Amino acid sequence: MNQHAILHIPDSRYCFASGEKELVLRLRMAREDEEAEVSLIHACKYDFAIKRRQEKMNICYSDRLYHYYEIKLQLEDVRLAYIFQIEEKGNIYYYSEDGITKTYNFEEGFYNFFQMPYINTNDIMEVVEWMRSAVFYQIFVDRFYQGDCEKDTKYITMQWGDIPTPKSFAGGDIKGIIKKLDYIKDLGVNAIYLTPIFESVSNHKYDISDYKKVDSQFGTMEDAKELVAKAHEKGIRIIFDAVFNHCSMKMTEFQDVLSNGKKSAYYNWFLIDGEYPDPEKMNYECFATCNYMPKLNTADQGVQDFLIEIALYWIRETDIDGWRLDVSDEVSHEFWRRFRREVKAEKKDCVIIGENWHDAYPYLMGDQYDSIMNYSFTKACLDYFARETFSAKEMAEKLSGNLMRNTEQVNFMMLNLIDSHDTHRFFTEVSKDKDKLLCALALEIIVPGAPCIYYGTEICMEGGYDPDSRRCFNWKQENWDREVMRTIKELTALRADSVLQYGKVNLREEDEMLCVERIWEERKIVLYINLSKREKQVSLSEDQKVMSSHRYDRELENNGFLVVMGQEI
Amino acid sequence: MNQHAILHIPDSRYCFASGEKELVLRLRMAREDEEAEVSLIHACKYDFAIKRRQEKMNICYSDRLYHYYEIKLQLEDVRLAYIFQIEEKGNIYYYSEDGITKTYNFEEGFYNFFQMPYINTNDIMEVVEWMRSAVFYQIFVDRFYQGDCEKDTKYITMQWGDIPTPKSFAGGDIKGIIKKLDYIKDLGVNAIYLTPIFESVSNHKYDISDYKKVDSQFGTMEDAKELVAKAHEKGIRIIFDAVFNHCSMKMTEFQDVLSNGKKSAYYNWFLIDGEYPDPEKMNYECFATCNYMPKLNTADQGVQDFLIEIALYWIRETDIDGWRLDVSDEVSHEFWRRFRREVKAEKKDCVIIGENWHDAYPYLMGDQYDSIMNYSFTKACLDYFARETFSAKEMAEKLSGNLMRNTEQVNFMMLNLIDSHDTHRFFTEVSKDKDKLLCALALEIIVPGAPCIYYGTEICMEGGYDPDSRRCFNWKQENWDREVMRTIKELTALRADSVLQYGKVNLREEDEMLCVERIWEERKIVLYINLSKREKQVSLSEDQKVMSSHRYDRELENNGFLVVMGQEI
Repeated sequence: MNQHAILHIPDSRYCFASGEKELVLRLRMAREDEEAEVSLIHACKYDFAIKRRQEKMNICYSDRLYHYYEIKLQLEDVRLAYIFQIEEKGNIYYYSEDGITKTYNFEEGFYNFFQMPYINTNDIMEVVEWMRSAVFYQIFVDRFYQGDCEKDTKYITMQWGDIPTPKSFAGGDIKGIIKKLDYIKDLGVNAIYLTPIFESVSNHKYDISDYKKVDSQFGTMEDAKELVAKAHEKGIRIIFDAVFNHCSMKMTEFQDVLSNGKKSAYYNWFLIDGEYPDPEKMNYECFATCNYMPKLNTADQGVQDFLIEIALYWIRETDIDGWRLDVSDEVSHEFWRRFRREVKAEKKDCVIIGENWHDAYPYLMGDQYDSIMNYSFTKACLDYFARETFSAKEMAEKLSGNLMRNTEQVNFMMLNLIDSHDTHRFFTEVSKDKDKLLCALALEIIVPGAPCIYYGTEICMEGGYDPDSRRCFNWKQENWDREVMRTIKELTALRADSVLQYGKVNLREEDEMLCVERIWEERKIVLYINLSKREKQVSLSEDQKVMSSHRYDRELENNGFLVVMGQEI
Repeated sequence: MNQHAILHIPDSRYCFASGEKELVLRLRMAREDEEAEVSLIHACKYDFAIKRRQEKMNICYSDRLYHYYEIKLQLEDVRLAYIFQIEEKGNIYYYSEDGITKTYNFEEGFYNFFQMPYINTNDIMEVVEWMRSAVFYQIFVDRFYQGDCEKDTKYITMQWGDIPTPKSFAGGDIKGIIKKLDYIKDLGVNAIYLTPIFESVSNHKYDISDYKKVDSQFGTMEDAKELVAKAHEKGIRIIFDAVFNHCSMKMTEFQDVLSNGKKSAYYNWFLIDGEYPDPEKMNYECFATCNYMPKLNTADQGVQDFLIEIALYWIRETDIDGWRLDVSDEVSHEFWRRFRREVKAEKKDCVIIGENWHDAYPYLMGDQYDSIMNYSFTKACLDYFARETFSAKEMAEKLSGNLMRNTEQVNFMMLNLIDSHDTHRFFTEVSKDKDKLLCALALEIIVPGAPCIYYGTEICMEGGYDPDSRRCFNWKQENWDREVMRTIKELTALRADSVLQYGKVNLREEDEMLCVERIWEERKIVLYINLSKREKQVSLSEDQKVMSSHRYDRELENNGFLVVMGQEI
């Protein structure tokens, strides 16, 4: 037995409450030890020496190296003590805080059992319920649609449809989004994530000079209110982009420090090495290497008050449904904790989605964000669909491993994406293969989490890295691929199914296909993706039906997918 | 290579800031792979694709299964990206967020490097500086000394020195502690932890009925103020015991709920299943199985306000230096986060010490406590000194493994103890072997963390489990072992040395002895403990001198220890 592989961490992603009396426990073991019988020995922590229960644990997820055993307990007493028993080749081992031992002294368990000492309700991470069925659409505002024909258009520097440069302005605006809400709704979308709309000199507006003002290029406060109100009427949620790591050097407070140095009331809002910030010397902390984006010091109480007020202001004024947090991994945990407290107090089901490209577990334990932009999913999709460096088995293992980074609740709220304004367009990454694009979208919609479709994906827009991935939406319908759009609509419609909203997931390779199975209350939805270069037969039982298909008629062609729905056996 | 054994978790105990520009990184590998060359490849996260540094990592700690490699980086840019390189048998492997791979694409590192995205100063766990040199003395107030001879003594039910029962009252009080401050100071103690002193019907006072009142058996608010003031004059800090998990059923608020049920304003202060709490049915949450100790619902804002006010009240009124938190693992994280924010705002160097008997990492990440009562150290001392089920090697491994549970800062603040009011007395556990008692105390004082001596240890008091470990202090000096007391004073004096306050630690077995080496700024202090049943030679170089010894005169006898100080080579 590979003892070194065995891992459990109490009060963590390996042991967490998923309800007031419900606890999920995970144990990691080496794949090579899959013959072992794993069980959980548990009791109320005050009874552990005298009476205990033992329950078998099953393998629920597998990645390249490990099997993950999982069990969900319904507790009567929410003060749990537990250890694991591993039976292997006739030998019994115990795994406790003291590691693997051949004997275990239950009398002195209070020194070294694992425990969930008490499930306090205020520590439980709750799922923002509407996220279970959310289908997001990300809009880069300047490039989606110009709805205001009467505005001052002098700032516009490109013809709609030209290839954008980093400095181009195309004229897209909030009124444009309002006008296209029916189009968006028709795609099956029920949530929109907008890149920043606040005052800024750039086209992307990630360098904000006035956080309380809608940029005049994009519209007015009234437009923002109207957008959210009209979207809500249509059952569409709206989330805004909170750029709180840094601001624009044009912001009044930074300008004040530029003029007054240490004498400015705002000196400590920034992180400056010297009496005055000097943009040429770059003697202050910035985003990346951009001297025009000074970093905000979120350790400062004044900055915290300022940013929190902005977050609450937009919720109060426009009733938005969430915040996406730009460069959130570089902002302090302490700030995000306060942010969550105050935002959730203002609007409980306001979703908080960090832009963390990496394992973000420290932010996702219940006290900071609800979710992140799941770029690890993006990367896996690139490796599987675009580069084909992953086999179906490797893809299943990678995605399974990623699911083990977070609690069940967080997995249901992950913002799954295949591309964004910060990547190449996925359609370009797969060399304009529409079949692969649809396969990837099917996967994004079937795995746990909320899919996020980057504007124009549905019309097969192309684009390389920024600024090329930010091209203007092509509204000439004669250029659209109706077949692709129809398939996307069929897929987004699946999100209404409780199996996808609540179901367990199992990812595996089956006959060279990637197979994703979701199960909930005796029903299941299974996705097959075939990138094998061979036609594949998927055997359907009588009670199963194909809910959506692409290139399937008994045989599943290469780069085709199939969604099957039926009873669980 | 045992790939399964390799572990690193970013933004955790495996990667944490120890200063504004200082970062500690740890990597865990299987012991069997100790021939591998491990190095860290790192750069500013925005430069990772273009220029990187590579630095060798060394083994700093070893437990039974693993070696822990550690490196401390002094950063210029506090936005770090990194991966590990492992060279083994001529093969090179990379370890990133994507696991172990034979190649690594630095161009796309932004998808899967490890990172410390930014060291924000407000996220850094700071050491409460006075804890570095603290020597604690724990006093069970009723049993230490009766200083008030004029008080109403009708409550006293036992003769001083009789064997206590669970319900005995002996008469110890705050005035008694004040009178013995010089005695305590003379032991080398500079911090006292008092079990609860607030109004309660029990002798231990862990069931509090009025949190703002000193129990009349123990004295008055004036006595409490005088104790802290006089102690401070003598350079002694005082910490009180915060029993916030539960209260006494006699507390006014619970009584109000008993009378008025759901109509009481305090109904939600408790966790009641029904209209009224019923002590006979025990239809409310309690501590353990004690119906007279109803659990406080720290998810309730009113309870939070109430308890926080108590914590601040005693700091303001008496200027205490810290809180020990009773049954803290059963109280909500959310509450402890607020507790820390408000307590630290009131008094920055107020130490917060949880009573968590288990790995308490989720509470020790910088947002909740500073420290815990280190019962895992207690258990290891029982296994090594009392039961002798641990060899010196196993003891070194166990303690090393425990150090890897937490950050360096937390390790410096751990409250290390060999016994308390909740265990058997250690002297009884080692069958009254004074040599072993002294060896254990030497270990407690040399390892990182603050030693906590349970009252009476210095006079070799005996005692089994509660109430026997809570006997009356024997003030008859003719019964004291002066040799034991002298040795303890020599040991506590060592805590003034910066090597113990700041030094790195290495734990190992050497010639069957437990060897604990502390190193700081070219000096070192080394402890040898010999439980081998054989005499041992410890070779001293010319520049080394013996600072403290017990059963040593050229040869280190069985159950003897030796503390050596010298230059680091």
